[in-house]
Amino acid sequence: MVTETLSRRVVVPARSGRAIRVGRGERFRVVDLAGAQVGDLFAFGDDGRSVLTEHLSASHTRAHTERSFPAVGDDFVTDLRRPILRVVADDSPGRHDLLIAACDPARYAALGVPDHPSCAQNLADALSGLGLVSGVPVPQPVNVFMNVPVADDGTLGWLPAPTAPGDSITFEATTDCVVVVSACPQDLTGINGTEPSPLAIDQPGVDHR
Amino acid sequence: MVTETLSRRVVVPARSGRAIRVGRGERFRVVDLAGAQVGDLFAFGDDGRSVLTEHLSASHTRAHTERSFPAVGDDFVTDLRRPILRVVADDSPGRHDLLIAACDPARYAALGVPDHPSCAQNLADALSGLGLVSGVPVPQPVNVFMNVPVADDGTLGWLPAPTAPGDSITFEATTDCVVVVSACPQDLTGINGTEPSPLAIDQPGVDHR
Repeated sequence: MVTETLSRRVVVPARSGRAIRVGRGERFRVVDLAGAQVGDLFAFGDDGRSVLTEHLSASHTRAHTERSFPAVGDDFVTDLRRPILRVVADDSPGRHDLLIAACDPARYAALGVPDHPSCAQNLADALSGLGLVSGVPVPQPVNVFMNVPVADDGTLGWLPAPTAPGDSITFEATTDCVVVVSACPQDLTGINGTEPSPLAIDQPGVDHR
Repeated sequence: MVTETLSRRVVVPARSGRAIRVGRGERFRVVDLAGAQVGDLFAFGDDGRSVLTEHLSASHTRAHTERSFPAVGDDFVTDLRRPILRVVADDSPGRHDLLIAACDPARYAALGVPDHPSCAQNLADALSGLGLVSGVPVPQPVNVFMNVPVADDGTLGWLPAPTAPGDSITFEATTDCVVVVSACPQDLTGINGTEPSPLAIDQPGVDHR
């Protein structure tokens, strides 16, 4: 009998980021603790070096899945077209964005708040917490729970994340990787509801009895 | 009186790429010479150094234009969110892709033809021709004339480019930049019609009389 037990929860405080290592075949779940919160998710291939280069790539993923947005069963691939994460369960309304860049200091400067926290800075800080650094420009993230509808004329919308407290999406690593989740600090466009809130990363353990 | 005269044409042979320098305020036109040919267009900020890093970014552009595909009047921005190219005229059916990665050796290896030419290699070769090198992973290109429709369920199609011989799209550089156009060598999916064909890059001169 195999019983799944919760072995580890990493809370991602509002407006910040956290990085974890995930081994091939292991799963993790991104949980929206309070609801209406976007998570910017990055993944890098983990080859044991401290400078990360191979990364989950949205444009290569779209060519692979032939879909504009992710769905259960889809593999995300890297810039080297190697599978890195698979969506294995989605206990949320199923809206996840794969079109929009991470927010960054330039974005907030344009919005008039140059010293605002950002997902780009959260990525760097979270990697630094594991003694790692990105060797590439900020990759386009998978924006879990982010609701960017595309109208028939191609126009994009910026709607609040439709998630309720406890909603989650679960991934399986298809290669050893480093995963970063940023609880998006965007509080000027409404995508995170009334205010940014925390997320959690749960890594279920498998207890063989 | 200002008369526009054609001062320079760079032919991009079928399956290959070419790079040009474009000064701020200058225009260039990508012409589909034989029809049904996709062009992978890359642009880098030109600060005089030989290693290029700032680049046209599709994901930052979508956040800026709030559109999934480009249209006349749209500004493409870089990974630093600086405008780099503007679409100023479109004498084509107006289908241009902004979702799909450049083809590369890994893509063709997966298709069973590992030694196939690719837009990624064409980019490197074209930059090399100007004594330049990219300091970043292959950026997602603007795929001019490429017809990737998005169905209501988010599924992507791969249709032949709808262009006729002589169709073109015209850009204006909003900063000094290096532009690379690859005549996509993809001959396995049908996106380039019956076979890959050449493109041209025209740089109109302005003759003040």
